[in-house]
Amino acid sequence: MEAIDTLNREVPCLSIIGTGLIGGSVGLGLRACGFHGRVIGVGRRPSTLARARKRGCIDEVTDDLITAVAKSRVVILATPLGSFAGLLERIAPHDHEELIITDVGSTKVEVCSDARRLLPTPQRFVGSHPMAGSEQDGPEAADATLFRNKPCILTPEADTDPRAVVIVESLWTCLEMRVLRMAADEHDRKTAVISHLPHAAAVLLTQVTGRLGGFEIASTGLRDTTRLASSHPQMRADIMLANRQPLIEVLDTFSEELAGLRHLLSAADAESLIEFLKRTKNLRDEWIKP
Amino acid sequence: MEAIDTLNREVPCLSIIGTGLIGGSVGLGLRACGFHGRVIGVGRRPSTLARARKRGCIDEVTDDLITAVAKSRVVILATPLGSFAGLLERIAPHDHEELIITDVGSTKVEVCSDARRLLPTPQRFVGSHPMAGSEQDGPEAADATLFRNKPCILTPEADTDPRAVVIVESLWTCLEMRVLRMAADEHDRKTAVISHLPHAAAVLLTQVTGRLGGFEIASTGLRDTTRLASSHPQMRADIMLANRQPLIEVLDTFSEELAGLRHLLSAADAESLIEFLKRTKNLRDEWIKP
Repeated sequence: MEAIDTLNREVPCLSIIGTGLIGGSVGLGLRACGFHGRVIGVGRRPSTLARARKRGCIDEVTDDLITAVAKSRVVILATPLGSFAGLLERIAPHDHEELIITDVGSTKVEVCSDARRLLPTPQRFVGSHPMAGSEQDGPEAADATLFRNKPCILTPEADTDPRAVVIVESLWTCLEMRVLRMAADEHDRKTAVISHLPHAAAVLLTQVTGRLGGFEIASTGLRDTTRLASSHPQMRADIMLANRQPLIEVLDTFSEELAGLRHLLSAADAESLIEFLKRTKNLRDEWIKP
Repeated sequence: MEAIDTLNREVPCLSIIGTGLIGGSVGLGLRACGFHGRVIGVGRRPSTLARARKRGCIDEVTDDLITAVAKSRVVILATPLGSFAGLLERIAPHDHEELIITDVGSTKVEVCSDARRLLPTPQRFVGSHPMAGSEQDGPEAADATLFRNKPCILTPEADTDPRAVVIVESLWTCLEMRVLRMAADEHDRKTAVISHLPHAAAVLLTQVTGRLGGFEIASTGLRDTTRLASSHPQMRADIMLANRQPLIEVLDTFSEELAGLRHLLSAADAESLIEFLKRTKNLRDEWIKP
């Protein structure tokens, strides 16, 4: 059965908590793929909700989390990471046996352990990480095609309800994501490498240029490498702190590699440097090749 | 007087030594802007020259550097950095009083000092760094608009012939570059920051991902931040080694910033981390704002 059929059969109503870039794009994408269920946008700021509704991301808006949860088969947490525990705590007393909860958080160990600790039936919680984004935010930046061809990682556990996993998987498949399953801790280690470290590097490059000067002659090289430094400070701080142990380990590996490169330069070892740059280029070219 | 008029009046014939991405793009750009002079492509590999001619980058090809120099008002060194000293040495005995030499090298201290040491009249050498490029190479990647709106840095010295500077400046202005003048050592320090460090970071990010894993879930963030790691290994090694002292100093500043970030994470200092990320975002947003 097609993912959209599963979704339309199983999910008459879905709530998106937080209708910024990601939540808004989920709403737009669901509409675009032929989802017939009702989509409720839940949030605290009436202006964000109104803008999301105006853009067509959601069918109705409310600031009443509990009523939205009562009506919904699926609830998607799309607020900043730091708010998940509080939301789960508020939802817990109103859990009902049809309710499936997922999230869009960039780290998974913390939210999965919060769900296990706080929910009466954590078996109906399925952690998700749709790996798409932009340095922009807000419902204005929402885009029905944001998720297309990007990976989405699910982190079900041994006792997670298989039906809940199928429904959450259908949701992301409908948005044309490439769904993978992974343990939460493996997810956090790998995203520290491929997402949080590049953000950190972008931030450090920007700071170094601020300190030593050169913006006036900088071109596309610096622009692309620092793009992530323009992303939302609070959101990024949340992610870095939620994943700080894996990130610190990855920063240390980065420092080791940096020391290795510094040594090649300081020894003016042309041969080894060329070999090193060749191996690196091959590694990247193999990765990005179509 | 318009830059193109200066060029057409002063330069009946120009030679481009090396017809890869940059040399080829200079040729295409000159044609596109209405340059009427003859453009000779000089190189050792007949196949590269033939491909450059076929693409319309140059009017004629030769492997005879000396004859090309004898015919030319302007000679542009567009081969890898490591070849400049040898080329200047070969040109020196055939210097003539109409000859202006420039280059497109990514570092300037070395080539300017080579010119001073090797040429009988170094006053007619003007160092140039057109700050445009791509991770691709060869005449196939050449593009008449490659230089448009990008900075080009000239590094004339106190005794450089002002007429030579005007002609070289006209050349890059015709290709729609934003021409700036700077001392060679200031150029090298600043490009270490805004160009060689981002390349180094791209290389290190790629290596760390190779070591720790995660390419299978990586998306646009890693792709953009590592783009420069796909550039030409030999060319990049030449640049890094020609500029190794400034680059080592910049790497050390990067390490200091990295240690600072690691400290904020390790102390879980949310407030300072958010402040740090805000300052960084402001710094970048100010820079890129139109």
